[in-house]
Amino acid sequence: MVSKVRVSAPATIANLGPGFDIIGMALNNPRDFLEVCLGEDGRDELEIQGIGANTISKDPKRNSAMVAGRAVLEKAGGEKFSIKMRIVKGVPPRIGLGSSGASSAAGAYAVNYLLGMPLNMEELLQCAMEGEKVACGSPHADNVAPALFGGIVLILSFNPIRIIRLEPITNAEIVVITPKLEIGDEKTKIARKILPKNIPLQTMVNQVQSFANLIIGLVRKDLSTIGIGISGDFVIEPARSKFIPKFYDLKEKALELGAYGFSISGAGPSMFALCKEGTGDYIGKTLISILKDAGTEANYSLHTNSKDGVIIVP
Amino acid sequence: MVSKVRVSAPATIANLGPGFDIIGMALNNPRDFLEVCLGEDGRDELEIQGIGANTISKDPKRNSAMVAGRAVLEKAGGEKFSIKMRIVKGVPPRIGLGSSGASSAAGAYAVNYLLGMPLNMEELLQCAMEGEKVACGSPHADNVAPALFGGIVLILSFNPIRIIRLEPITNAEIVVITPKLEIGDEKTKIARKILPKNIPLQTMVNQVQSFANLIIGLVRKDLSTIGIGISGDFVIEPARSKFIPKFYDLKEKALELGAYGFSISGAGPSMFALCKEGTGDYIGKTLISILKDAGTEANYSLHTNSKDGVIIVP
Repeated sequence: MVSKVRVSAPATIANLGPGFDIIGMALNNPRDFLEVCLGEDGRDELEIQGIGANTISKDPKRNSAMVAGRAVLEKAGGEKFSIKMRIVKGVPPRIGLGSSGASSAAGAYAVNYLLGMPLNMEELLQCAMEGEKVACGSPHADNVAPALFGGIVLILSFNPIRIIRLEPITNAEIVVITPKLEIGDEKTKIARKILPKNIPLQTMVNQVQSFANLIIGLVRKDLSTIGIGISGDFVIEPARSKFIPKFYDLKEKALELGAYGFSISGAGPSMFALCKEGTGDYIGKTLISILKDAGTEANYSLHTNSKDGVIIVP
Repeated sequence: MVSKVRVSAPATIANLGPGFDIIGMALNNPRDFLEVCLGEDGRDELEIQGIGANTISKDPKRNSAMVAGRAVLEKAGGEKFSIKMRIVKGVPPRIGLGSSGASSAAGAYAVNYLLGMPLNMEELLQCAMEGEKVACGSPHADNVAPALFGGIVLILSFNPIRIIRLEPITNAEIVVITPKLEIGDEKTKIARKILPKNIPLQTMVNQVQSFANLIIGLVRKDLSTIGIGISGDFVIEPARSKFIPKFYDLKEKALELGAYGFSISGAGPSMFALCKEGTGDYIGKTLISILKDAGTEANYSLHTNSKDGVIIVP
């Protein structure tokens, strides 16, 4: 048995446009780093450093990465082991970039690796989703699956879980805009509560059609069609955008500046634009200046769609 | 200018599984046949023969094929011409196989051909949709687009109309089961009225996910995944199946007999199963015997997904 492993898992954009709960993409950065080893002393140990470390549960039974790792031990018959884990958070929590998904994916992957890889992809994903569940209240897979496997992951079935990985977008930039808002512990849970309970039939048809654009665009590597899909969320975005200052001004400006598509990342408040290589910096600068003019501090960051999910690091 | 043309357009399955209003497939048979020429005497002429001819409007202003042809003349600047048309109906009206869509597609195509093909694909489709509108009350494109272009057509945008044609399914049979029910003139309009006005959020997510299976299956030529998509309509099928005797027994039996997927064709009452080559005949026989035992006469027919839409015939 390997004694210790160091892994890294990426930030992700879930709820990609009209694909609420069923599609997410891995970003090249930021990343969480985990150092994990297994003990036989019956005592789990957890240390957390990095961005937002103070907001994350240090209780092994409530921490996403630990819960995910423990789920792997249980599924693989390794209950006798204890987990010693050090987390260095790179993905900021509560901004809509899949922070708990990254930690869950990394925790599950690391423990599976230390056991000699007994679990297959679906099993590993299920364990990682256990970690996501303690953090977010819902065991959704659209952050944790791309954090594990990289690229763009489509969840074809929830129960049993069945996924496919689509090729990453290689010839575009993703600019993420994050307004600095006061966000409480229950962010993801509340972000679900504000969603409409019922959707008009025609809105559903429009949503399915946007999703068709997204998937066909991804399959045909057609950035304009991907963008039409991303921008066409008629259900989730109208509800969640109410909590983001100037959302529709930002969207309009991004598209006016040539972005292929614009939407909320995950449960927000971060937003993202898919845009031509070399244009993300200007789009980011412009959008945060609109937010600043409206009295909201914000920052932006540049990304690409990463082909890698969890990786082993030296 | 060519003086006369004879064209043929196929039956189609619209509302393919979860793709209400946005995806349809062309069948290899049955087909409508149209003989069309243009006159300069200011007098439209229309003759209809074949299956269900007595149920179809002979008023040039109300007949789908004539309205579609007239729309082409108007769009192409050929208003001075009159249309002389003979329709031989092969696609039975009112059973959910896109009868008016076939006639509309054929009418639009024939007139465009006689004018020397002035309209492009999208323009032609728009004209054909005018014909569909007079027959069905709604200008939906998911019958008329595959009837025009063949294969499987996905409607990526309604306004402006934007479509893509997916490769046809080449290695499976489609068995269509048609119960003999009393159906009035307003069938398609009523079939829309019985649909739910609002859909629960989770149902919408499930519908988008089924649609993801359908598209990914089609793109990857994976019949099982296509079938999961087709069978997973959580919105339209539950409403329309109430008017089809034994619908869920038929669906269960078809899947038990190995069909990849089963759903309602268009607005019904025909149903279809996508199944392994060589198994459609047995599935069809079995399903109509279930209907007969329940007191409903029915017939079945075997098809493939046609690569051809409208074709010129000698």
